[in-house]
Amino acid sequence: MFITFEGGEGSGKTTLIQTLVKWLKEHNIGCVATREPGGSDIAEKIRAIILDQDNTHMRARTEALLFAAARVQHLEETVIPALEKNQVVLCDRYIDSSLAYQGYARGLGFDAILKINTFALEHMPDITVYINSDPQIGLSRIKSRENNRLDLEKLEFHQKVREGYLKLADMYPQRYLVINGDRTMQEVIDDVKAHLKDVLLCQK
Amino acid sequence: MFITFEGGEGSGKTTLIQTLVKWLKEHNIGCVATREPGGSDIAEKIRAIILDQDNTHMRARTEALLFAAARVQHLEETVIPALEKNQVVLCDRYIDSSLAYQGYARGLGFDAILKINTFALEHMPDITVYINSDPQIGLSRIKSRENNRLDLEKLEFHQKVREGYLKLADMYPQRYLVINGDRTMQEVIDDVKAHLKDVLLCQK
Repeated sequence: MFITFEGGEGSGKTTLIQTLVKWLKEHNIGCVATREPGGSDIAEKIRAIILDQDNTHMRARTEALLFAAARVQHLEETVIPALEKNQVVLCDRYIDSSLAYQGYARGLGFDAILKINTFALEHMPDITVYINSDPQIGLSRIKSRENNRLDLEKLEFHQKVREGYLKLADMYPQRYLVINGDRTMQEVIDDVKAHLKDVLLCQK
Repeated sequence: MFITFEGGEGSGKTTLIQTLVKWLKEHNIGCVATREPGGSDIAEKIRAIILDQDNTHMRARTEALLFAAARVQHLEETVIPALEKNQVVLCDRYIDSSLAYQGYARGLGFDAILKINTFALEHMPDITVYINSDPQIGLSRIKSRENNRLDLEKLEFHQKVREGYLKLADMYPQRYLVINGDRTMQEVIDDVKAHLKDVLLCQK
């Protein structure tokens, strides 16, 4: 079972995943929580280049290719081995992030992103949890954390990212679980648990 | 005029390019010598990850995507602006390196490489100078320099790279200039100059 979590900055994905890991462990279900870009040593080095605030002159296509490079390394080193051990993989961001951010918000187009991520199409998530929340609220939540290069984008960019995700949810209704993120964290967590309960707790 | 230089390790590309730059300057022809991966600050950071000897577990597809990422950044930041100023661009390695190394020698296939390098297809070199030399001789020449991750590959790998280049020379005879590299450096330089003289010295 491969579950990915998508959403804008400050949408609460990290807290949500940590809570789900605890919940799965309480039910003795083996799981791995990981994140993109990163989740393996080489992929973390690529992540550092992508998020470095000095790299504001990075071209959109460079960014998309770096995300894809980090993705394939992480997929082969971390995700696939865990899935082969029948573990539940909870992954913070995956190909949908590239589709929403570089494909839609940066305007490269979904097709260009799919073309450089063909390897990911052979390993698509069973479920993609999308936390649909107001970017303005999300951005105000992350004010206290250290900003990375993508956090520095203007509000309109983050609104376009949301539009991109909603288009993807329409395109892939079978794997997309759209969760209203404009609620308290506890409400979001309860909602996700209610939706995933049947499918996850029968993994034992 | 966009000229790329291809060849195995130790084939003498660097010395050749330096000599050509001097020659063009003597004839008052504006030129830029650059290299891949690298040639711009972000691309040099990507280069460091690609060539780092600690990254021996890098997957072939990760490597191919990192080369493509460095390529598009370098192309947009360095190559295209120079071409727009009517400068001759002499570039040490370009898409043919990805085709020969990752596409052919690592077995990803030419098509997979072309798919992630579509941006390069809009900016193909006018001439690709391929220094066709025995990999065994090339590898013995670079023994004194500090090795990078790709230098550590076995001889058979470098022989496959050569096979890949010769296939490419057959596929793209119009832009390929195949130079016998199993001669003294001076002979190679004179041969390249003789071939490029008419096309380059009329650039003024």
